[in-house]
Amino acid sequence: MIVSIIGLGLIGGSLALDLRSNGFASRLIGVDLKAEHQDQAIELGLVDEILSWEEACKVADILILTVPVSAILKQLPIALDLIKEDALVMDMGSTKSEIRQSISDHPKRNRAVLAHPMAGTEYSGPKAAIHNLFHRKVAIICDPKESDKDALELAERLLKSLFMRIIYMDAQEHDVHAAYVSHVSHISSFVLALTVLEKEKSEANIFNMASGGFASTVRLAKSSPKMWRDVYEQNADNLIDVLEIYIKKMQGFKALIESGEFDKTAELMEEANEIGRILKETPHLMKYS
Amino acid sequence: MIVSIIGLGLIGGSLALDLRSNGFASRLIGVDLKAEHQDQAIELGLVDEILSWEEACKVADILILTVPVSAILKQLPIALDLIKEDALVMDMGSTKSEIRQSISDHPKRNRAVLAHPMAGTEYSGPKAAIHNLFHRKVAIICDPKESDKDALELAERLLKSLFMRIIYMDAQEHDVHAAYVSHVSHISSFVLALTVLEKEKSEANIFNMASGGFASTVRLAKSSPKMWRDVYEQNADNLIDVLEIYIKKMQGFKALIESGEFDKTAELMEEANEIGRILKETPHLMKYS
Repeated sequence: MIVSIIGLGLIGGSLALDLRSNGFASRLIGVDLKAEHQDQAIELGLVDEILSWEEACKVADILILTVPVSAILKQLPIALDLIKEDALVMDMGSTKSEIRQSISDHPKRNRAVLAHPMAGTEYSGPKAAIHNLFHRKVAIICDPKESDKDALELAERLLKSLFMRIIYMDAQEHDVHAAYVSHVSHISSFVLALTVLEKEKSEANIFNMASGGFASTVRLAKSSPKMWRDVYEQNADNLIDVLEIYIKKMQGFKALIESGEFDKTAELMEEANEIGRILKETPHLMKYS
Repeated sequence: MIVSIIGLGLIGGSLALDLRSNGFASRLIGVDLKAEHQDQAIELGLVDEILSWEEACKVADILILTVPVSAILKQLPIALDLIKEDALVMDMGSTKSEIRQSISDHPKRNRAVLAHPMAGTEYSGPKAAIHNLFHRKVAIICDPKESDKDALELAERLLKSLFMRIIYMDAQEHDVHAAYVSHVSHISSFVLALTVLEKEKSEANIFNMASGGFASTVRLAKSSPKMWRDVYEQNADNLIDVLEIYIKKMQGFKALIESGEFDKTAELMEEANEIGRILKETPHLMKYS
């Protein structure tokens, strides 16, 4: 199986590592705009060779787009034009509605499977690629009925070869839930970092005061601005919606501190504790597909 | 060395574990209001015996208060009344100004050392106690000149026996920096959890969408409401101050998304990325004391 990966960053590179070691890919082709990334991907053994974007599309049995979502929007329709008749194209973008729309009238729409692996780290570039990034994580496939049965099955086989658990949603639903859970947590982390950097002028104090708690809350603030800029653009409406609630809740929390209603902050924190139960217990309720 | 620990939770229990295994304590006395915690502390081998609050104060060479800060405020002056002439009292509270004030006129003020270990997890109670919680973490000692030299040295020896790096500050300065870095990250995490719980009605969706990124950002939302309620009360002014900046920055971020200025969000995220450099590089600039 010849697998071409467009975009040799954290996601593309990690896919390459595991698809090689589990034997799913017999040949790995890489594409990246940056010459530096191309060199690193070869040196790190992520891919066997670097081809031009067009060549990589043409030779692939499976073509995977792991570029920022604005680039997926542009590349996906052209990729569908170029691929072999029976090839599969997957994208791994963090938003889905506009991507789905971009190929809705394409005559080869049915060769595309839109996926979103709920996995990542705060690092980027080929050097960020790691083994087992996707292991036992969720992969969301959007609007599976719009893909050919064999294309869908091949995509599922690929994701399962990484030990991913597959969930199905429509693209709009996906974008709402992604905003509510995944995207907003990145923004809260970026804003926390900006606040601390503004208020705390001493780097030594930031370091000294930064217990493991601070470090984990602010971890996502190291994430790629380029990637997240695109996500905000693609998912602006849902994000505005959830940020409005977030800001109101934060203002409410601050108002309780201002008025000295500390017992009420404790009640809110008890409500918030519920998130721990959900993240811990829900796995037992879920079936691995 | 007889060490009495008042409050057998995450901090008290973890202290007990390490002070026993490194040989610093020859006998460990525990005190906890809850009978269940007393039983657990004995079963888990955290302490050798449970005594009454008064007894534990009287027999200790070192008395350590690891109760919520409102309880420290009440207990610390009375503990100073009860301890042996040459005993040391330490508190491990997350705020310091009011605690310092509570004993400022006490005739035995100089037997107290006010400390804040920058270490913890999101769990609480005796079962949350773990080995090496304090290893290579920062301990802040406030207003060291107000303590007797021998008391201060003993406190430093205890902290260093846990491999902690000691930093000195005055109490007010401590509370400002703690609010700016540590306390606000807890609030942002609690508020994120509340937002997600309100917007996302499906527990399965929260679980499915919760990648490692979400989990780490929301981790602190599992923290003890009782402990944090007190911290907000003790450090209200500094927290209001930093939350105001946080809310303004969040509103600014949302406004950029609303007006479609996505490149400007990328600039802000690049600024935020700086936090990664600080958390990574600053250790090399610091000397272990």
